[in-house]
Amino acid sequence: MAEIGEQIRNKQVIFKDYISGFPKESDLYVKNDNTTILKLPKASNGVLVKNLYLSVDPYMRLLMQKFNTGDVFTPYQLSSPIKGYGVSRILESAHPNFKVGELVWGSTTWEEYSVISNPENLVKIEHTDVPLSFYTGILGMAGLTAYGGFFEVCSPKKGDYVFVSSAFGAVGQLVGQFAKHMGCYVVGSAGSQEKVNLLKTKFGFDEAFNYKEEPDLDAALKRFFPKGIDIYFENVGGKMLDAVLLNMKFEGRIAVCGMLSQYNNLENLEGVKNLMHLVFKAIRMQGFQVYKYFHLYPKMLDFLLPLIREDKIRYAQDIVESLENGPAALVGLFNGRNLGKQVIQVAHE
Amino acid sequence: MAEIGEQIRNKQVIFKDYISGFPKESDLYVKNDNTTILKLPKASNGVLVKNLYLSVDPYMRLLMQKFNTGDVFTPYQLSSPIKGYGVSRILESAHPNFKVGELVWGSTTWEEYSVISNPENLVKIEHTDVPLSFYTGILGMAGLTAYGGFFEVCSPKKGDYVFVSSAFGAVGQLVGQFAKHMGCYVVGSAGSQEKVNLLKTKFGFDEAFNYKEEPDLDAALKRFFPKGIDIYFENVGGKMLDAVLLNMKFEGRIAVCGMLSQYNNLENLEGVKNLMHLVFKAIRMQGFQVYKYFHLYPKMLDFLLPLIREDKIRYAQDIVESLENGPAALVGLFNGRNLGKQVIQVAHE
Repeated sequence: MAEIGEQIRNKQVIFKDYISGFPKESDLYVKNDNTTILKLPKASNGVLVKNLYLSVDPYMRLLMQKFNTGDVFTPYQLSSPIKGYGVSRILESAHPNFKVGELVWGSTTWEEYSVISNPENLVKIEHTDVPLSFYTGILGMAGLTAYGGFFEVCSPKKGDYVFVSSAFGAVGQLVGQFAKHMGCYVVGSAGSQEKVNLLKTKFGFDEAFNYKEEPDLDAALKRFFPKGIDIYFENVGGKMLDAVLLNMKFEGRIAVCGMLSQYNNLENLEGVKNLMHLVFKAIRMQGFQVYKYFHLYPKMLDFLLPLIREDKIRYAQDIVESLENGPAALVGLFNGRNLGKQVIQVAHE
Repeated sequence: MAEIGEQIRNKQVIFKDYISGFPKESDLYVKNDNTTILKLPKASNGVLVKNLYLSVDPYMRLLMQKFNTGDVFTPYQLSSPIKGYGVSRILESAHPNFKVGELVWGSTTWEEYSVISNPENLVKIEHTDVPLSFYTGILGMAGLTAYGGFFEVCSPKKGDYVFVSSAFGAVGQLVGQFAKHMGCYVVGSAGSQEKVNLLKTKFGFDEAFNYKEEPDLDAALKRFFPKGIDIYFENVGGKMLDAVLLNMKFEGRIAVCGMLSQYNNLENLEGVKNLMHLVFKAIRMQGFQVYKYFHLYPKMLDFLLPLIREDKIRYAQDIVESLENGPAALVGLFNGRNLGKQVIQVAHE
């Protein structure tokens, strides 16, 4: 156990250069020989943390390229460790809200130990009878994205026909379960037969299909939704969105959470052709960001914690050990290698 | 003046055949030698009307082709007179709600005299101190489309930056004036310098531009909206929508009224590439149909009639005489020949 004031190794995952196309492991590297004095800088009002788990998320691809996101995302800095969300323990605090030993989740850096100079946005972890890694997912950003995106954006009601793309992902698996909990009919798409099976057997989806094995997505959706779709939770964009637009019901809702299929081809985005159906069927298509729903976090915990404890909501995680595997884990997101929410366990305590 | 029971000429505009691409005058023909007995059929519960004005609308292009509109629109029937909205006088009534001599607006047929067998959806015209033709536009479907689309869908507030495409059209000119009335900054796009000038001088738009003279629509929008767009009232789709998406502000709203630029190329719709900005900026993009706002019609009249009488809201109409000019008027919509709302005056009383 490292002591405050000690010189320690602080392994980091460093961003090499801006990319286009698919990310490769070699776009990042692990700096093993980085050392630091384990201490808050003198003038800091922040906290010093030990990172325990890091969240690996599709949006991170957007930060690896200089791409116009309307100033929402700031690209990674060259030769610096990358940023992300994680679960951390406070080792030293100069901020009145945080005490040594407390657990928090929020924005941190891909390294073993981090100084967080604006800890106001960190969320304290009060419930530790559930896996701590859940705070990178179901009880963290992914959970709140699914909770706000589904309950606040989709205007769901019992009996609605709900389609979720990237349904085995960190957010999709939750949206599907929330919809089932509400009494909706739920179908998910995923990229392997294994995921499709798990969606049905483990997560209670009514149906699921492997989009890679459907040459005609419109026909697939017509098979699963002969009466049409009330709610589409959009994670992928492109061809899937075009097919969904043809199959939406009157006054349907599309919550746009992300467009994963486009992130590796930002210079040549796929055009979506069937937007006239927004008019024909009076569809609301709404983009959203999780930040808007932070005030709902306590309500979400009240909803989710009992369901998790009673095994009524499940969460699939794919946890890899050590920062060494960070670059591979991030790249793996884009070929669907991960089976559920991708997490890196940085340290065992 | 024709008498009930008399045999009369009933000129009609007949639909010839389903088309693709741009409509031509020869896709329709005027049947001059059609005759009929001016009388309600015996078992009818409807009304017999004399059509005075007919509305010429872009959506009619969609009915000239067998195209999947999600069963919202029914294509025209071959060798039959086409349907549309109009202003009519009741000549005979078998329906308790309507009396001989009353004026109505609603769905009718492109012919001189029509039997309307389901008159429940006709709206009685109570105010005739304003031009009767207004009930094909500002006081009819176009007015309600603009009123519902702007006030109900766009969530406008004072000071918002508003962009309207096809701004000199039947709906666009009203949306721009409603937005000015509310204290918004309003810019419109149109297809000729004459329209651009009139938008600024006659309708009070803050700025307007000719989209045909802007090789880079993104650059044009950045010039007029250096701080971005809060509300886009979408009438055209395609490239304009793609450029707008790059220039929307956070939590902006896009009301999708129509996509005129696509109607003549339905087999090869243009792809819209920048939909990821829906996420980046948490944009709500909402299709709508005017039918949803019929309950607001009395409220709309209360709002509009005083403004029309005081010349505080203006309405540009392009009225052609006689059904003979019907095919040319409909085709003219798609090369922007009309200067304002296109109307056919079928008869003078």
